[in-house]
Amino acid sequence: MSLNKTFKMPVRISFLGGINEIGKNMTLYEYDGDMFILDCGLAFPEADMLGVDLVIPDFTYVQRNADKIKGVIITHGHEDHIGALAYLLKEVNVPVYSTALTIGLIENKLREHGILDACSLNVIKPGDRFNLGKFEIEAIHVNHSIPDAVAFAIRCEAGTIVQTGDFKIDTTPIDGQMIDLARFAEIGKEGVLCYLADSTNAEKVGYSASERTVGHAFETLFRMAGKRRIIVATFASNIHRVQQIINEAALNNRKVALSGRSLENVIAVGQELGYLDVPEGLIIPLDEINNYEPWQLLLVTTGSQGEPLSALSRIAFQDHRKVNISANDYVIISAKPIPGNEKSVSKVVNELMRHGAEVVYESMYDVHVSGHACQEELKLMLALVHPRYFIPVHGEQKHLSNHAMLANLMGMPSRDIIIPENGKTVEVCDGMFHENGMVPAGKVFVDGSGVGDVGQVVLRDRTKLSQDGLITVVLTIDSASGEVIAGPDIVSRGFVYVRESEEIMDEMKTVAREATEDCIANDIRDWTSIKSSIRDGIGQLVYERTRRSPMILPIIMEV
Amino acid sequence: MSLNKTFKMPVRISFLGGINEIGKNMTLYEYDGDMFILDCGLAFPEADMLGVDLVIPDFTYVQRNADKIKGVIITHGHEDHIGALAYLLKEVNVPVYSTALTIGLIENKLREHGILDACSLNVIKPGDRFNLGKFEIEAIHVNHSIPDAVAFAIRCEAGTIVQTGDFKIDTTPIDGQMIDLARFAEIGKEGVLCYLADSTNAEKVGYSASERTVGHAFETLFRMAGKRRIIVATFASNIHRVQQIINEAALNNRKVALSGRSLENVIAVGQELGYLDVPEGLIIPLDEINNYEPWQLLLVTTGSQGEPLSALSRIAFQDHRKVNISANDYVIISAKPIPGNEKSVSKVVNELMRHGAEVVYESMYDVHVSGHACQEELKLMLALVHPRYFIPVHGEQKHLSNHAMLANLMGMPSRDIIIPENGKTVEVCDGMFHENGMVPAGKVFVDGSGVGDVGQVVLRDRTKLSQDGLITVVLTIDSASGEVIAGPDIVSRGFVYVRESEEIMDEMKTVAREATEDCIANDIRDWTSIKSSIRDGIGQLVYERTRRSPMILPIIMEV
Repeated sequence: MSLNKTFKMPVRISFLGGINEIGKNMTLYEYDGDMFILDCGLAFPEADMLGVDLVIPDFTYVQRNADKIKGVIITHGHEDHIGALAYLLKEVNVPVYSTALTIGLIENKLREHGILDACSLNVIKPGDRFNLGKFEIEAIHVNHSIPDAVAFAIRCEAGTIVQTGDFKIDTTPIDGQMIDLARFAEIGKEGVLCYLADSTNAEKVGYSASERTVGHAFETLFRMAGKRRIIVATFASNIHRVQQIINEAALNNRKVALSGRSLENVIAVGQELGYLDVPEGLIIPLDEINNYEPWQLLLVTTGSQGEPLSALSRIAFQDHRKVNISANDYVIISAKPIPGNEKSVSKVVNELMRHGAEVVYESMYDVHVSGHACQEELKLMLALVHPRYFIPVHGEQKHLSNHAMLANLMGMPSRDIIIPENGKTVEVCDGMFHENGMVPAGKVFVDGSGVGDVGQVVLRDRTKLSQDGLITVVLTIDSASGEVIAGPDIVSRGFVYVRESEEIMDEMKTVAREATEDCIANDIRDWTSIKSSIRDGIGQLVYERTRRSPMILPIIMEV
Repeated sequence: MSLNKTFKMPVRISFLGGINEIGKNMTLYEYDGDMFILDCGLAFPEADMLGVDLVIPDFTYVQRNADKIKGVIITHGHEDHIGALAYLLKEVNVPVYSTALTIGLIENKLREHGILDACSLNVIKPGDRFNLGKFEIEAIHVNHSIPDAVAFAIRCEAGTIVQTGDFKIDTTPIDGQMIDLARFAEIGKEGVLCYLADSTNAEKVGYSASERTVGHAFETLFRMAGKRRIIVATFASNIHRVQQIINEAALNNRKVALSGRSLENVIAVGQELGYLDVPEGLIIPLDEINNYEPWQLLLVTTGSQGEPLSALSRIAFQDHRKVNISANDYVIISAKPIPGNEKSVSKVVNELMRHGAEVVYESMYDVHVSGHACQEELKLMLALVHPRYFIPVHGEQKHLSNHAMLANLMGMPSRDIIIPENGKTVEVCDGMFHENGMVPAGKVFVDGSGVGDVGQVVLRDRTKLSQDGLITVVLTIDSASGEVIAGPDIVSRGFVYVRESEEIMDEMKTVAREATEDCIANDIRDWTSIKSSIRDGIGQLVYERTRRSPMILPIIMEV
């Protein structure tokens, strides 16, 4: 290795995940032939991704470089950071490194996919250092809405890179473990080549509130609930939130019942690994709630985002097998709607209220705090890490732009900041900082058991079908004479009621028959042309009559 | 008319419009055989109303009582209060009463529908009183985000009912015309039987800010824009907002160009009727913007809700014929996303920023104020109107519940408050206040030129098609022998790529053929049974292979 090479070879950082969010879900580092992956999460489909269940990163580049990948490091146990790991490990089975709780949650996932035994999972602690090829990795403790979250300092000959997962600064966290600001400062003093940091709350001024404030709100609310049953909906993985709910329930002599599979899973893992302290006998099976009076009960449920199949949603719409909602219920939604979920949450709130329950939600009474750093925290971190170069990640363009602006305000020139794009590679070493090249990246759709078989064409068809429905035109042709011997038959779905539109159905048949006969008469015998002629004729007729453009599907059978 | 009847006959108030919002869009009043309608607006379709363009109230009850309807009174010129009027007047041509600007906007709509000349439009002023059968109507001036908004005092032998449209209290409105609180107080003193009021902001504490604060924000922002071109997106109908933008543009020596048809329409009507004061030569055609430097220009556009076809959206996605976005642009989105539109607005903001523009949006810098009264205003109005009974309207269940709670706090017992439901009728007179009966009401879908021909079955099909697409199975049977003589052919759309799934296509053909042959062999010859057998077989196969449930459409032709 020449001296020149040692100092001038850049680290290549590629962003493989994300939909609207940039630099989220999955990042790939490459230096001198060695690679590793940071986080491997999923994204939830946008409204226009019809029928898609999950969106995972494109693993093409990973597969192509399978022999170079030394491992995967994970910042924390949320779905958008671990949710695609099972799909990745099926393709490239490399060792995974993270903290105990995160590994516990990953184990659950790999077990569901039936690949747990084949995988190498390695528990690390903040402060630990380990090597992945030519990289040395150090985990640094941070605060977030799930315990055991870390950022990473990534060292190689090119310098030190610091990348956070999601984080906030909580000076009074529930477990007493504040973010290790001193370590960030120390590494900053040693010199940081590049810093990549969470931008989710870069639009929000000031500081995020401490998780502890939610506990204070619960004290007040539990008093206000009086003789009523309390139902709290929250994110399953927010173990500190759940701990505070459990503490308050114990203080108020209320038994706790759980509803929602993900909640039961996380609480089991949390208890097992010692992240959750539950007094003996406090949690009762959901089946036993009828043995208690409303004021002796607290239910913790999933569904704080209004998800239609979640426990809270089923309770609201009187569709829960074990819980009935009434004026005897005091419901606390301890979460904020993720952008795009506002309507679904409102629907659940409306329905709970329609049944007489009192509902505390959104910004009323500090029942939720964000897990992401706001502007003052972001600036503090920029000051401590004091990087040569800066790449804001985790957020939409607007969040990244805002984060970049904060760095500008602190004196960092724009040329030392890159707002990345998904699928782009940034090259960085001392004196070099630029985007260089693209990698295959993007959204791979998981629909049912299929991974990647739903693409843009399928989505475009689904969109068209969803807007104005479908008209199928079928006819049977005698292959010898070219004569139409059966049909045309018209079958429509999602268009209009047939009954109400018999006239247009007849017209369509006429148009289809004439189009076919014209083709035959003009000696046009290839089906593509005949179909196209039918499609045009019927499309025009339908648009004139209804101002709609259903999908038109001509099918010709030959006998 | 007996004494008994005079005093005991209730006014019947029926709520005919709305989707999630209750008591919105259209209210019908009935007393002693006479009826009138208050507002006739549309709602915009929810996410699950696939392909639907507009949602209008059900006019069945109106049509059934056509001879009793004495007229329509309109509170203000927003779509959700006037947008269904053209559809109504086509069914029941009754006189319409409202203020000058509202009538001006209604004229535009009726002209588009080609029915203007056939309709009777009557301009009224606040303070005017007129009769509709046994009712006497009085309009009372209120503030809102469009000029010339009114509430109504509705008098008949049963007593006085006050119903607001949308309103707020603006003590410093741009046109100097503050809401006529004194008149509400006076009517309250005389005695109000029932009060129906806007609940949109019943969750918001305090007071709504004055429209004038937006003007102050514009002063600052126009300075910050410096040498850049300014683009302001706002609601076309917010004429006072547009006035403030125009004033600030004039002060800063910027020419104003407009982009967006609705904006041009409203500004034309506003200028013609004297609601908008535009200095001579200030507005230039959009075609001429290239004759000016960026700092000499201000564009006003539609699209503040991120509507995909709007001017701002086209500008952001570089799809506007006359406007290119760049780092020379300073964009102000002077609006707040309506619930459900958050994502679309974000997409536009992200795209504008990606092209280097600076964007001011949402709660940054008070660039928008709400047009709806907050809690303190609502309570003030309740105090002034001092009704015997109260019906909160305009809002989701949660807003209405909150509004009712405010009335409770002010000492009104719950038995004197009814939270209505769409399609329900409330009967009210002295000593009587209850829900009594239902009227045909609800959502009639407008899709293309069709009104009401898209119903739940069509929507259910569109939903199914949108989730997993469609598989069509076609076969031709010899009617004599029952033998399959052509097909089965499989055509899919929105399911998976055919290329990638040829194996499953072959399997489907086999299943379809076997299902058909089994039926024939067992002498089952009715098509419904054969189709059902094909549908079941293929459905099962596809679900096992893919965990998806596409719509399966078997078509059998007979030769």
